[in-house]
Parts: sequence; structure tokens; C-alpha cells
Amino acid sequence: MRAIYLAGPEVFLPDALAVGRRKQELCVAYGFEGLYPLDNTLRPVAGERLDQAIYHGNLELIRRADIGICNLTPFRGASADAGTVFELGLMVGLGKPVFGYTNVIDDLIARTAPPEALVFDEATQEWRDTSGLLVENFGNADNLMIDCALLAHGGHRVVRHAAADPLRDLTAFEACLRLAASAARQLAARD
Amino acid sequence: MRAIYLAGPEVFLPDALAVGRRKQELCVAYGFEGLYPLDNTLRPVAGERLDQAIYHGNLELIRRADIGICNLTPFRGASADAGTVFELGLMVGLGKPVFGYTNVIDDLIARTAPPEALVFDEATQEWRDTSGLLVENFGNADNLMIDCALLAHGGHRVVRHAAADPLRDLTAFEACLRLAASAARQLAARD
Repeated sequence: MRAIYLAGPEVFLPDALAVGRRKQELCVAYGFEGLYPLDNTLRPVAGERLDQAIYHGNLELIRRADIGICNLTPFRGASADAGTVFELGLMVGLGKPVFGYTNVIDDLIARTAPPEALVFDEATQEWRDTSGLLVENFGNADNLMIDCALLAHGGHRVVRHAAADPLRDLTAFEACLRLAASAARQLAARD
Repeated sequence: MRAIYLAGPEVFLPDALAVGRRKQELCVAYGFEGLYPLDNTLRPVAGERLDQAIYHGNLELIRRADIGICNLTPFRGASADAGTVFELGLMVGLGKPVFGYTNVIDDLIARTAPPEALVFDEATQEWRDTSGLLVENFGNADNLMIDCALLAHGGHRVVRHAAADPLRDLTAFEACLRLAASAARQLAARD
């Protein structure tokens, strides 16, 4: 059975374990094992800090996984959760197929600043915020490295779904599971 | 000559090229070639979107690099720039030594919420924000995956420096160059 690493900021929710269980049950329904970060059995070695034990535990799960699904719903800022984005990069570096979703439908530029706080630079044909910092305007869900990595390493754009409860809704997650099932069939055909 | 990939949100500045040049000059002073994302020669193939051409260009520079230095100064939210964090994860996945710095000295919890907006959960011994979302309290500069990855893959914590101009100051960047020079000597000893 193929394993999917379940990256996302739901680990910070008060009901993080319950949300993880629901994700894992959906994985099983699609023929996968779901590896959830809070599952890693922490065995800090003598003197090891808890954060390092968590890091190494997550890394072990990521190495075991065949596929990644990342919850890229914006978290404490304009972009996805930093831990999730790191793990997405790591999985791309390790050559694993990755899929991603967001439960906020607006693209990056709409989330970064309201239109009246954006300035169009005629010379470069780019948008900048009031501090003069460029705002990407590719219609992407997040920084281009994220959207383009998913396209290159999973073959699909970020799945977007407007959800009333953005950190818990699993509609777009399930859409990613369907993409992962199709990727798994391709992996199996290669074996 | 070893090459260093220069990841960071300074690519969004109006003077992005000038800041990149200064970083590259410092690289040369320490015996490195600096690979700056805006240097990639974009050759979009027929029908290729500009964002995808940038992605593939950056990927090519990252693959060429021996070492990475990431500017993790917070950007549009509590954490580092999402593109930089993605590239950090990618370099870790590719097994390259990485170093990181931030020009904001506060740790993640101090930046995420003021003390009066944090609630201590006695049961789990964790801090949560007013939405009930956990806030990591490990004294790290950012999400634990970032800080711990740098420790595991470069051997050092995030270099922190309080700078008046956080997106342009190169004091902490130069400290990372010194760490990179020491890593390069180790890579050379292994060759």
C-alpha cells in the first residue's frame, strides 16, 4: 500500500488529532496509508531537544512516504504555513510526486493587498505594494515556486476550494487524494 | 570555485539587482560564486508561462549550487518568505549544506502574537493564540522544521541580527558566508 505524507497547519489546531484521523480514514478509502506528522513516535535521544526530535520524526515519515499532499491554506500571513512549505520543498528535492490544496480561493495578489494598495509599475509591468515590494501576479495560489513545483512534480495546479472552515474542510484534500490515486496507478505501472 | 545559491525575499525589492550584486561581491570576497535568482537567463520554451520559466531557471541554479544561504527575515506574515522556505526544503532534499539568517531578532512566538494574546494550555503545556491555534515556543526564529533543518544540514542555528533595514542589511549574511567558508573547507577535505 502506497503511503501519503499529510503536510499541513491542521497540526496546530486544538483538535489536530481528530482532523488527522479523518484525513487518514479518507486515505484508506482511496487505498493509501496516511502518514500524519503527529503520529511520529518521539524518542528524543539523551539531551536531544523536543523540536529536533519532532523534526527527525517528520523527516522519517517523509522519507517513508511515496507521495505528499500539502494543505497550503494561508496561515498567519499571505502564504501557506512555513513548515508545510518546507516539507513540500523537501519532497520535491527527494523526487516524490506532490499535490496541494488551499481552502481560500483568492489568488496571492488578492490576499497580499487590496487593489487600492497596489501600484502598477509601467516600466517593468509589475505590481508593487505600498512599500515598493513586488507582488507576483501570475494568478497563482501562492509564491510561484510552490505552484510551479506542484505542476512539475505532481502534474496539477493547487486545488482551490472556498471553505467555511478553512483549516478543517477536507473537500479539496479529497480532490488531491483522487489525483494521488491516479499518480499511484502510474507508479505501479512503472514498477 | 564553490557556488552558493542566494535565496531570499530581496528579489522583490525595487533595487533587487543592486542588493544581489552586493551579495555576489561578498561571495567573491569569501572565495565563492554567488548564484542569484534574478540571474537566471529566462528562455521560456514556446507556450511556457513566465512563472514556470522562472521556476525552472531557479531550479537549475539550485542544482548547480554546492551550498545554500537563505534570508529568512519575516516577509508578509509571521514567517520567512514562502519561496525562500520552499528553496530551503529543496536544498535539504538534495543533500546540500544550508545556512540561514534573519534580520529580525525576535523569536517566532514573540512575532506571532503579543504576550497578552497568548493562552497557556496547562494540560498540554503549550501556548495557543486567541483562535486556539498552537504557537511553537522553542525559542526558534521560525517554524521548527526550518530551524532544525539548518542545524541538521549546515550545523548551525539561524544567525540573527537586529537590522534597521531588514531586507537589505548584509551583516548576518556575511556571518553565514563565514560558516559556508568553513563548510567548503570540509567539502574540499572530503573530495
